[in-house]
Amino acid sequence: MHVAIPLYHRFTALDAVGPYTVLGYAPGWRVTFVAPQSGPVVDDLGTLSLVATHSLADVPRPDVVIVPGGPGTEQALADPALLAWLTSVHEHTAWTASVCSGSLILAAAGILQGRPATCHWGWRDLLSMFGAIPVDERVVVADKVVTAAGVSAGIDMALELLGRVEGEAVARTVQLAIEYDPQPPYDAGCATRADDAQRQAALALIG
Amino acid sequence: MHVAIPLYHRFTALDAVGPYTVLGYAPGWRVTFVAPQSGPVVDDLGTLSLVATHSLADVPRPDVVIVPGGPGTEQALADPALLAWLTSVHEHTAWTASVCSGSLILAAAGILQGRPATCHWGWRDLLSMFGAIPVDERVVVADKVVTAAGVSAGIDMALELLGRVEGEAVARTVQLAIEYDPQPPYDAGCATRADDAQRQAALALIG
Repeated sequence: MHVAIPLYHRFTALDAVGPYTVLGYAPGWRVTFVAPQSGPVVDDLGTLSLVATHSLADVPRPDVVIVPGGPGTEQALADPALLAWLTSVHEHTAWTASVCSGSLILAAAGILQGRPATCHWGWRDLLSMFGAIPVDERVVVADKVVTAAGVSAGIDMALELLGRVEGEAVARTVQLAIEYDPQPPYDAGCATRADDAQRQAALALIG
Repeated sequence: MHVAIPLYHRFTALDAVGPYTVLGYAPGWRVTFVAPQSGPVVDDLGTLSLVATHSLADVPRPDVVIVPGGPGTEQALADPALLAWLTSVHEHTAWTASVCSGSLILAAAGILQGRPATCHWGWRDLLSMFGAIPVDERVVVADKVVTAAGVSAGIDMALELLGRVEGEAVARTVQLAIEYDPQPPYDAGCATRADDAQRQAALALIG
C-alpha cells in the first residue's frame, strides 16, 4: 500500500510522524511525504522541518492519504491546489484519513459532507461549518474515511487502519515493534475530563 | 530550557518527534535538532528526513539532551564525534535522556556506567555490555539521566521529565494540548506479554 502524507507550512509534526511510523513499518507499505513543492516544510513550532520528497503532482494515485493538522490548517484549508489534489486522490483511495485539525482540511475539500468525523477537541465543532457531523471519539471510521482526534491520536488511528487492511496480527506486530504500551504519567489528555481553565491553558500553547 | 536532539543516519523519527512535541509546546522551552553537520538527516525507513538546523559544535551547552534510537544506533555508538559531544554536554546538562536504543549511545559514551537504564525491549540486554544495569520499565530516572523504552515511550518520558522540571500542572496542560489520552485498539505493545513468535516477528520489522 502506498500512503501519501501531505505537509504544509505550520503543520504539527507528531500528527504526521505518528501514523508514518505505524504504517511505514508494516510489511509492503511505504509512505511518501508530499507538499505543493518538494523540499523542507517547517512545522508549527518553527524549529523542525520535514522533507517532502515529492510534490503533490508527483503522487496522483496513493492508496491511502493522511492529512495532518496544526495551526497551519487555517491557511491550508483555503489552498486551492491542496484541496483539488485531495478531491482528486480521494476518488481512488482505499482510505482517506486525517489527524487533529487535518479533518477540517478534508471537510473543506468536501470529503466529510454528511459524515461523522472527529478532530482535536479545540476545533472539533468547526467541522459542522463544512457539513460534517462532529463526534467526540478518538478515532471515527465512516466508510473509507477515518478521522482521528488531536496530535497523538494519529498513532491509535493508524493501528486501527492497519488492522482493518492487513488484519489484527499485523497491527499487533507493529504495535509491539514500536513498544506502544502507553503509560502516561498523568491522566490529563481528555478534554471532557478537564475543566475550562485547563482547556484554555492548553489551547494557549497551540493556538 | 534549551533541548538538543542529536540526529544520525537511520534514527527512528518518532523517537525524536515524540519528546520534541511534548517539550516544544512547553512554555519557555525550545528544541534544536543537531547533527554532526547541519542539514537533512535520513531516518531508518529511508523515506523521511528531518532537518538538523545546527551542527553538534553549534550547541555546546544545552540544558537537556535527548538521544533517539533506531537501527543507526550501531554506527552512531561508534562515532567518536557524537560520543565526545555527548560526554561534553552531559557535564553541564540539567537532564540527559534517551529513547529506545538511544540509551546504548549514552552507554557507549560512558554516561550509564553503573546506572539503571531502559531501552527498546529487543536491545535492552545489550546495556550491560557498557556497564549499565538493564531495567524492564517504560521510563527509568537515575539521578539526572532519564531513559525510555522503545519508540513511543519517548512521549511518556518527556511528560515525566517536564513534570519534574516545571511541575505537574504544566505537564498536564501539554498532555491535554496534544490530546494524549491513548486508546490503542489492541493490547499488544508489551514484550513480556507477547510470545516468542510475536517478538521475533516484531524485531523482523525494525531490525
